Amino acid sequence: MNYKKIDDIYLLCLSEGERVISSIESFAELEKITSGFFWAVGAIKNVELGIFDIEEKEYIRAIFKDYYEIVSCHGNISVDPETGKHLIHTHISFADKQFNIHGGHLFEAEVTVTFEMVFMPVTVPIYRNINPKFNLKLWNVV
Amino acid sequence: MNYKKIDDIYLLCLSEGERVISSIESFAELEKITSGFFWAVGAIKNVELGIFDIEEKEYIRAIFKDYYEIVSCHGNISVDPETGKHLIHTHISFADKQFNIHGGHLFEAEVTVTFEMVFMPVTVPIYRNINPKFNLKLWNVV
Amino acid sequence: MNYKKIDDIYLLCLSEGERVISSIESFAELEKITSGFFWAVGAIKNVELGIFDIEEKEYIRAIFKDYYEIVSCHGNISVDPETGKHLIHTHISFADKQFNIHGGHLFEAEVTVTFEMVFMPVTVPIYRNINPKFNLKLWNVV
Repeated sequence: MNYKKIDDIYLLCLSEGERVISSIESFAELEKITSGFFWAVGAIKNVELGIFDIEEKEYIRAIFKDYYEIVSCHGNISVDPETGKHLIHTHISFADKQFNIHGGHLFEAEVTVTFEMVFMPVTVPIYRNINPKFNLKLWNVV
Repeated sequence: MNYKKIDDIYLLCLSEGERVISSIESFAELEKITSGFFWAVGAIKNVELGIFDIEEKEYIRAIFKDYYEIVSCHGNISVDPETGKHLIHTHISFADKQFNIHGGHLFEAEVTVTFEMVFMPVTVPIYRNINPKFNLKLWNVV
Repeated sequence: MNYKKIDDIYLLCLSEGERVISSIESFAELEKITSGFFWAVGAIKNVELGIFDIEEKEYIRAIFKDYYEIVSCHGNISVDPETGKHLIHTHISFADKQFNIHGGHLFEAEVTVTFEMVFMPVTVPIYRNINPKFNLKLWNVV
């Protein structure tokens, strides 16, 4: 993981074999990030995805084992008010060798070639509180 | 709909049952938004999509009734110079329970769990004028 | 190609028949762009895509000849330190008339109706160096 700050944003670059979500967590901790937004392009494999099942109130999960070209990757870094820990919320879509697209909520993925991410910090923490109906931590932006 | 301004951007959070496009319209009116750009993640159902048919010069429309995980959602708020009203232009893609992706121009959708949006305002209005060939209101950024 | 600067960002609008990547290259040269990030919505045809084959170390290529609605388009402008020339790295996904999505690395595409792009410049150049393993120019953000 390499990164640097330019103006008000960070550029973060991951290399072959690095894991996307755990790298963003490390970055957030190392840089004492308050909260903020990111997006990325790059290439990944072993993608662990989820689709939230609103009836069962849990994620349907799948692993995509091939290697893929990311076509969109968006997320935000927020803070759990109980633990003070960063929460990384990321949605992704990616193309297979037939140029078909798959995607969903990203649990984790492994970088194959590169992962070029822009992170736009904000100076006030974005908190998430448990929503009891869905048992998910949702934004508190009141 | 909850939102707050942090630094130069707005965070907007929609809850179960709220409608995406009409909520963004209300937000733009309430906050007297000049113009700007947004992106979002979240989960939706009853998605009204369009693909512009360049031969027929109208949108092919479809409604996706299931519930979905948004994988990308991008748009801008501009101004109709004739009416002074906000125009919300949004394109979206979303994953179904098989992790397949569908998408297009977004007419409207209903939030199922949450909709986490970032809005980046600009201080000069972006105007749209009618393009007579396509009968669409396109950016005027000359 | 029309564009204008508002606050710290550029709006760039392409019209029917203009080419996406070569227009962004012209824009970068005309405005003496250092480096930065962009995203866009719009409609395109004759889309030249690639998926990087990590075993063969070259792009699998395909051309999508129909016309499509862009659902996500993200990229960055960086600089080749050897030539000083701009490098445009773009990933895209787009919907066909059945609302199915295709996408990958974008080599080039032709605008059908419009292409509405936001460009966020940074004041320090982002350089790319050759990665010998993949024979690709990757970010140098150390």
